[in-house]
Amino acid sequence: MGADISVPIDASGGHHGICENDREGETMATLKDVAREAGLTVGTVSRVLNNRGYISEQTREKVYDVMKRLNYQPNEMARSLSKQTSNTIGVIVPHIVHPFFSKVISNLEQAAYSSQYRILLFNSKEKEEKEEEYIEACRSNRVAGVILCSGSFNTAKFKNLGFPLITIERFLDEGTAGIECDNYSGGVQAAEHLIERGCRHLLHIGGVNELPMPADSRKAAFDEVCRRHGVEHHAVDPGQVFYDDMNYYPVIRSALEQYPETDGIFASSDVIAAQAIRVCHEKNIEVPGQMKIVGFDDVNIASLTYPAITTVRQPVKEMAEAAVSAVVRSAAGEMVPARSVFPVSLVIREST
Amino acid sequence: MGADISVPIDASGGHHGICENDREGETMATLKDVAREAGLTVGTVSRVLNNRGYISEQTREKVYDVMKRLNYQPNEMARSLSKQTSNTIGVIVPHIVHPFFSKVISNLEQAAYSSQYRILLFNSKEKEEKEEEYIEACRSNRVAGVILCSGSFNTAKFKNLGFPLITIERFLDEGTAGIECDNYSGGVQAAEHLIERGCRHLLHIGGVNELPMPADSRKAAFDEVCRRHGVEHHAVDPGQVFYDDMNYYPVIRSALEQYPETDGIFASSDVIAAQAIRVCHEKNIEVPGQMKIVGFDDVNIASLTYPAITTVRQPVKEMAEAAVSAVVRSAAGEMVPARSVFPVSLVIREST
Repeated sequence: MGADISVPIDASGGHHGICENDREGETMATLKDVAREAGLTVGTVSRVLNNRGYISEQTREKVYDVMKRLNYQPNEMARSLSKQTSNTIGVIVPHIVHPFFSKVISNLEQAAYSSQYRILLFNSKEKEEKEEEYIEACRSNRVAGVILCSGSFNTAKFKNLGFPLITIERFLDEGTAGIECDNYSGGVQAAEHLIERGCRHLLHIGGVNELPMPADSRKAAFDEVCRRHGVEHHAVDPGQVFYDDMNYYPVIRSALEQYPETDGIFASSDVIAAQAIRVCHEKNIEVPGQMKIVGFDDVNIASLTYPAITTVRQPVKEMAEAAVSAVVRSAAGEMVPARSVFPVSLVIREST
Repeated sequence: MGADISVPIDASGGHHGICENDREGETMATLKDVAREAGLTVGTVSRVLNNRGYISEQTREKVYDVMKRLNYQPNEMARSLSKQTSNTIGVIVPHIVHPFFSKVISNLEQAAYSSQYRILLFNSKEKEEKEEEYIEACRSNRVAGVILCSGSFNTAKFKNLGFPLITIERFLDEGTAGIECDNYSGGVQAAEHLIERGCRHLLHIGGVNELPMPADSRKAAFDEVCRRHGVEHHAVDPGQVFYDDMNYYPVIRSALEQYPETDGIFASSDVIAAQAIRVCHEKNIEVPGQMKIVGFDDVNIASLTYPAITTVRQPVKEMAEAAVSAVVRSAAGEMVPARSVFPVSLVIREST
């Protein structure tokens, strides 16, 4: 808590806090101006704006006319304060530039827009203290709720926040609702596709975190399918996920040196799959002739590489809509499912 | 203006608006609670928080101790309202998923964080009415300023907004400050590099908008350099830019059919360059052997394709810092440069 904090001094009573300031030196019209100009009381103008109580059509029209004429701007901040909550949703992602998260953000913004909410965006960069700081910033900004994407920290601290906390692809015992894709089914589809295309020495390249993540099921499913089909399989993980860096080359290279017989790779993201394709080019391994590769996510990179990547598609649009809807509905006191798992589908392109 | 608008009813006078509400049913500590617990007046506690007037070290420590003990959260919304401006910056981009814009957003978030600002994010999807609506939303949320990225609309409407309007890679006569990269120099570097590597039949694939854009200089520079070197050159443009779709394949294919002697391409983005590489693979044109390709931006895709893309690097981090700094400084009444042009550099990879 720094010395630069500026807090309004006095406290005015009343449950519905009072927040219209005199705006010295500003030309912006106030509610008072609208009332004066319309020859009505502030209370009547407020009832029109809030659509509360009986108001004649004539009065309503007069108020709207004056508001238009005076270019009256309702102050969202003031409205938020009186409601003790705002029309913003905090969105915390580990890395904005990672194509999966930029796709998530884009779809969250669209879903929020449709529900007349705004997005306050935070980039935690996989730093636990930044994540905590951002949760505090969200609380201080009176967000309607927070959507927390992935990340890998202990979540016991997210208790009694006073607003709904929705997770996307992350376990959160203290959260209001979790949105996931069917990671297990994705792993099954990827492994079965590779085996069906003739692969007999499979490799899984994962994104592993220190804590259990929904995405872990991708590998569990892959292992299970390989065992069932009696197919040799190995798994490597980059140790720690650096979404920002997105540098998986050393892990991929050493895995292909350790398991040179590999003829199929299931990468747990399209970014990893794209890098696996580059490593194959380096090593003169023909894709898909000698090596078949399946990614995960279906982000833009999947169709920009050569060969384009066969991948497990997460329904990001639907997941984002569900997350925003969970914020809106649970903020309104409605019950929302604690966990929603969305189906995935295999998009077959050139890499298999 | 809809009927669902809720505006606080009364108006309390006083220049420094009064915005601490009684929070019935909430356990959150108020400024009053802190004052009571510390045995001080609300005015004294406020002076400590605002670092205003003489306060003894002992009093200061006592206040901070109590705030910590009571878990006092200063209410950013209330503070914003009393200041008539908030600690948020509105950011409007045409498309979040386009890798250039996700890189811009990520760097803006980082720069804002360093200046203790938050990002309110809007995706205009190249729709003029959405852009106008978002500017209104920013005004209504009392943002400290707006950063507007690219987009292609007439900007005469953005007059007298009451907050600084900063543009990145977009002309805006009514704006406070424009941040650009040195597009002309980028075009020169790209063309000279291709010619130096032996290309004699050059093609420029642009992203063209209806209105003049700073990026247009890339093509102007390319034309100029080709003319000076007596190198044959053509230019095609996708007609309208669909950042979201990012589908330039038809334009690239037909350009290579129209100009089959082409041996070098300057693409005005890495996304276009990545697609040009895919079209060359399709047509069995070896890159860089038979065709050399230079992109623009230096986003993550540039190093994920095979071959990796030689590109003109925009210093996005520095540009984002300048944009945030322009908001902060001009909101504080300081003068900022009307136009800032940042140097670009050629990053040589495998595609040339």
